Amino acid sequence: MLVVDRLVIVGVGLIGGSIGKAALARSAAREVIGVGRNSRTLDDAVQCGAITSGTTDIASACRSADLVIVCTPVDTIASFVQQAAAACKKPALISDAGSTKARIVADTPATFPGEVRFLGAHPLAGSEKGGVAHARADMFTGRTTVITPSDATAAADVSLLQQFWEALGAVVRMMTPAEHDRAVAATSHVPHLAAAALAASTAEQYLPLTSTGWLDTTRVAAMEASIWGPIFASNRDCVLHGLDAFEATLRRLRAAIETNDAAALEQLLATSRARRTAAQNTP
Amino acid sequence: MLVVDRLVIVGVGLIGGSIGKAALARSAAREVIGVGRNSRTLDDAVQCGAITSGTTDIASACRSADLVIVCTPVDTIASFVQQAAAACKKPALISDAGSTKARIVADTPATFPGEVRFLGAHPLAGSEKGGVAHARADMFTGRTTVITPSDATAAADVSLLQQFWEALGAVVRMMTPAEHDRAVAATSHVPHLAAAALAASTAEQYLPLTSTGWLDTTRVAAMEASIWGPIFASNRDCVLHGLDAFEATLRRLRAAIETNDAAALEQLLATSRARRTAAQNTP
Repeated sequence: MLVVDRLVIVGVGLIGGSIGKAALARSAAREVIGVGRNSRTLDDAVQCGAITSGTTDIASACRSADLVIVCTPVDTIASFVQQAAAACKKPALISDAGSTKARIVADTPATFPGEVRFLGAHPLAGSEKGGVAHARADMFTGRTTVITPSDATAAADVSLLQQFWEALGAVVRMMTPAEHDRAVAATSHVPHLAAAALAASTAEQYLPLTSTGWLDTTRVAAMEASIWGPIFASNRDCVLHGLDAFEATLRRLRAAIETNDAAALEQLLATSRARRTAAQNTP
Repeated sequence: MLVVDRLVIVGVGLIGGSIGKAALARSAAREVIGVGRNSRTLDDAVQCGAITSGTTDIASACRSADLVIVCTPVDTIASFVQQAAAACKKPALISDAGSTKARIVADTPATFPGEVRFLGAHPLAGSEKGGVAHARADMFTGRTTVITPSDATAAADVSLLQQFWEALGAVVRMMTPAEHDRAVAATSHVPHLAAAALAASTAEQYLPLTSTGWLDTTRVAAMEASIWGPIFASNRDCVLHGLDAFEATLRRLRAAIETNDAAALEQLLATSRARRTAAQNTP
């Protein structure tokens, strides 16, 4: 089912590439134009079916765009949205796939001249393996995409973006940027820090003793380090607040072990188990 | 290749059942007798090919055993080893599959009357899904099993137990009980606490926002809570020491975020990534 005619993806990596593959595979867009810095990466993206064509010139790509999705690192999104908006020559909706929302939405007007609008979004999907080579058409199937409308957002734009993400197989939720950022601090950013701290604090001579438990618990720490700095910087307060909650729970676990309080320890572990099992069963 | 004639498994759950399945599938034992409290569970274990027969009477099972492996929770292993040793009526080797080693080895003589010996071991394998129903013949394939000989251990016993675990597909490493316990505190026990703290500190209303990252990072928190209390209790000092190292690294990550020190943050995340990648590539 065709949702948009001409889709532009700025930043054709794992997420941008997967959006392109999914949009083409499910015929949600007739044409997908990829924008990147490196024409060889764009050629690879065409080769693997993530985009129909690629260009290093964002202005030429956006000229006749219906929908632009900026899939670059979070600290560059607001700037690319501005560049895309300036280049659109017909009414268009610009969105993004950034892991944080409050700062991007604050830095970006909801409307630009010429019926060009911005509406933030965040597909909750990914992999520790980056790059368009790992892009998958089923990346968003059954996964949540959060859309963060503001008071200035037109209902028709919310509806169009929801339709687009649902066409890609995602389950769409509406949240405010602030709600979104608090939630992902707990569900993504703090877990990333815990995984990173576990990996870094495991002495090298113990690595041969790691098993599936350690490998799963630390999996996200294998991700490209450079994309995470801007995420933590743009969501600093929520991340620090989430870390407080995590560390408080860890202190309770430690205290139960220190004092040999088997009942308290089992109670805490049972709570963890219930929460983990509830998440597994949450659609 | 037949390693032992009569294998007795005390505690036919996920690990005990997988040892039985693997031993039968690879013909490492001619006969596998399961010992448990619940005859229905033992019937299930026979049905699914984990054991050739089952009994609730440890004494009758061990009478003519060649190798006994105690696969019960860590706080009960020393007692079951004693019971098995008292029941053996011919020379036999008794071992275990406990997640900690120093206390079990300290609580258990290396030799018993009648040429019955004890030698500790720990297969580094498992799943968040417990019970014999989830036992798998390939549970130990390519996985490490640690054997912890003491000065009193006969070389022939080390050799027999190594042969047995290699027949099950495992890679065997020799360590002292103390070395083993320090290593698994870092590679298993602290990660379990981090996963549990993450799961418990994620507010219920945020669970719909969890993605594959959160689910992997917290996977082990879905395990049965009751088996972990005794593990933490029996390895308390190493676990607290491991927690210190984890928390120190987490504090460095937090400080880099608090002070907007992008270079320090990226350096820490790069170290984590390198450690995680090294573990993935460690055989």
